[in-house]
Amino acid sequence: MKYISIQEAIKKGKGKVSIRGWVYRERGSNKLKFITLRDSTNIIQCVLERTNFEKTWEEIDSTKIETSMELHGTIKKDERAPTGYEIQVTDYRVVGTSDNFPIGKDFSTGFLSDNRHLWLRSRKMVAIMKIRSTVFGALHEYFRGLDYHEFQSPIIIPGGAEEGPTLFEIKYYKDVAFLCQTWQLYAEAAMFGLEKIYTISPSFRAEKSSTSRHLCEYWHAEMEVAWTDLPELMDLAEGMVKLCFKRVLEKNQLELEILKRDPKVLEPVIKKPFPRVTYTKVLEDLKKKKMKVEWGKDLRTLEEEKFMDGKDVPAFVTNYPKEEMAFYKPRDPKDKKTALCFDLLGPEKMGEIIGGSVRDENIEELKASLKAAGEDVDNYKYYLDTRKYGSVPHAGFGMGVERIVRWICGLETIKDAIAFPRTMDRFKP
Amino acid sequence: MKYISIQEAIKKGKGKVSIRGWVYRERGSNKLKFITLRDSTNIIQCVLERTNFEKTWEEIDSTKIETSMELHGTIKKDERAPTGYEIQVTDYRVVGTSDNFPIGKDFSTGFLSDNRHLWLRSRKMVAIMKIRSTVFGALHEYFRGLDYHEFQSPIIIPGGAEEGPTLFEIKYYKDVAFLCQTWQLYAEAAMFGLEKIYTISPSFRAEKSSTSRHLCEYWHAEMEVAWTDLPELMDLAEGMVKLCFKRVLEKNQLELEILKRDPKVLEPVIKKPFPRVTYTKVLEDLKKKKMKVEWGKDLRTLEEEKFMDGKDVPAFVTNYPKEEMAFYKPRDPKDKKTALCFDLLGPEKMGEIIGGSVRDENIEELKASLKAAGEDVDNYKYYLDTRKYGSVPHAGFGMGVERIVRWICGLETIKDAIAFPRTMDRFKP
Repeated sequence: MKYISIQEAIKKGKGKVSIRGWVYRERGSNKLKFITLRDSTNIIQCVLERTNFEKTWEEIDSTKIETSMELHGTIKKDERAPTGYEIQVTDYRVVGTSDNFPIGKDFSTGFLSDNRHLWLRSRKMVAIMKIRSTVFGALHEYFRGLDYHEFQSPIIIPGGAEEGPTLFEIKYYKDVAFLCQTWQLYAEAAMFGLEKIYTISPSFRAEKSSTSRHLCEYWHAEMEVAWTDLPELMDLAEGMVKLCFKRVLEKNQLELEILKRDPKVLEPVIKKPFPRVTYTKVLEDLKKKKMKVEWGKDLRTLEEEKFMDGKDVPAFVTNYPKEEMAFYKPRDPKDKKTALCFDLLGPEKMGEIIGGSVRDENIEELKASLKAAGEDVDNYKYYLDTRKYGSVPHAGFGMGVERIVRWICGLETIKDAIAFPRTMDRFKP
Repeated sequence: MKYISIQEAIKKGKGKVSIRGWVYRERGSNKLKFITLRDSTNIIQCVLERTNFEKTWEEIDSTKIETSMELHGTIKKDERAPTGYEIQVTDYRVVGTSDNFPIGKDFSTGFLSDNRHLWLRSRKMVAIMKIRSTVFGALHEYFRGLDYHEFQSPIIIPGGAEEGPTLFEIKYYKDVAFLCQTWQLYAEAAMFGLEKIYTISPSFRAEKSSTSRHLCEYWHAEMEVAWTDLPELMDLAEGMVKLCFKRVLEKNQLELEILKRDPKVLEPVIKKPFPRVTYTKVLEDLKKKKMKVEWGKDLRTLEEEKFMDGKDVPAFVTNYPKEEMAFYKPRDPKDKKTALCFDLLGPEKMGEIIGGSVRDENIEELKASLKAAGEDVDNYKYYLDTRKYGSVPHAGFGMGVERIVRWICGLETIKDAIAFPRTMDRFKP
């Protein structure tokens, strides 16, 4: 028996089909049973008539939601059916029975989180996870298409790297180690051998608050490239985002529909260039909008959102104040108060999607910045080493994959952009 | 100025070229300087004549290994040159000077490990990392080509999963959590929504010994699929390994050459089917080879190697004794002492490359196996839940990516199959 997916059956549209999946909805009378079956591709309404199944009617009649079944029958158009087609069932088999499925309509977020392992079967979560997979695929396609090597940096790292307070601590035999937050310092070392590298890898931040934009464990798409500058780096970031959107619009129409996400909202991202604005210009823009930010302060969420208000594509904000920036972001020789860096801010209050910068090559500048940040320079020996032996201009960026998934899907919270979210409050199941 | 890679310059073979990279070797006289430049693609010999560079001869003469340079000149065939071509340099620029590069020939493993961030520039490590990237690419290609969704399970997990003593412990705010060893239990939950899923993700094992086959942090290619059985699962595993080998043989000839790895050793893996043998048959085979193993004992490395001796392709060993197996591996209804599972053993003393099995659907069997293994059944509530609501036949496997990379590259130790290896003795740099 050759089974096809529900989506394939719908495409076929007529004739005999064999499908299998799980009961998504069921209702019936004494004479007819309607079973809407789901598989990973779609749902379809199936009808069983009692006259054809006298002997097993009790089994059919007592079919519950999530029962797994094989169904054989004839498919035909039926505009009343939820996906426009219906299967007249001629034979069936119950594969696995089901207890009363605990999830129905109108359950609390807490309950759904506790039952995440079952909630993952919902059409909503399946749609998000498929879009997420498309985004991962587009990232691989993008970088591999440009001859980048996929490279992995360590997850377990020694202490002493930046942002200590948000590092998770591990018991490493008799030592203490930490979970990585970025591949960057390792990637820069590898760049000297491989020149063009990318990764999609988990990263960790022990966030001190729970927001709709932060996860403690997230997937980080990062890249590092030799022989480049800030404008080229932004071209690469823009191309990457555009390809993610393009592939989702091509492959996930059905999923966007399930999520009630209007594809028209996503189209400008592919079609229009992303504006590039300096931090200083952003402050001028905010001033016009009656929001005063003192030069030198980092932009807060509220200010980012005000600046992005009304925009339908993301914007690069460049040249943030050097003193506010991570130690490895170099001064812009043309505007020395600022650094050669960017944040890509998303529309729809999505905030920072990508952060990137040129990397400082000057060992003395690096040391000074580390000291200014209160870091122990000795902890960065291996990083500073990389500059001693034939440094080259290089740059890189990192994107929180869940942030772009959240934005594409139009999700209220980033927690739904990952299968099993880890936050300050939750690491189960 | 348009720069091309060294490999592109070699392919061009004549005319003017501009390249950039790092000094790999240098030697010279009072009149001539030979610089072998490396980039991520290859190396090439370049000649600078003093008569053309009178003014800057001192700079040229003092060029050190790893200095980064841009070189412009004319390329031509030269059989004496290491890669068959030579560039007559007409113009150059030093991009970054270099201190005395600490790594030369004949350094100890310890020294190279301490300087891993610099050792990654070596031709050997670059070749391995490029093959590793090809393997990652082949894995993505393989599963995506079969319509699998790329899915990510959590890295941070609550306690109580199997193999406690080899779990790494994390301080998770006020709680204790652990680093995952496999995605399996989570993947099985997601399988009910997505049906066909795969991942390539870090996994962690606090190994109690240091061997040439184990890492504390490794990348794990795992898959889980609905509606399948053991023979189909082995077909999938075999197809995956074959595609990895095929892509490396197509794309990494130069890298195999650098590693002195004969492609002929790899070819049988693509061409010949992998034998499939039961554990019981393996014991019979070993008995003929004068090695006695009592039925019911797991195979030790020595025994695996004896069985694989003389084979040039990997072999599936199936139907291991049920009592020795993880709780989720079901009894074979045709041979109830054994489980529906396999290990794929590699030739050349590579040991287990892949482990896979059908997943037990029977809640009572699962509970009994958990109890027999001394586990607290309550810790597996969410896993057992998945069987309550329309279970379906499903199966999956996991491959240690570094193991296949080690095997393809013919490496003495698995530590060289990853950029920054983590072992009992080392988590730095």
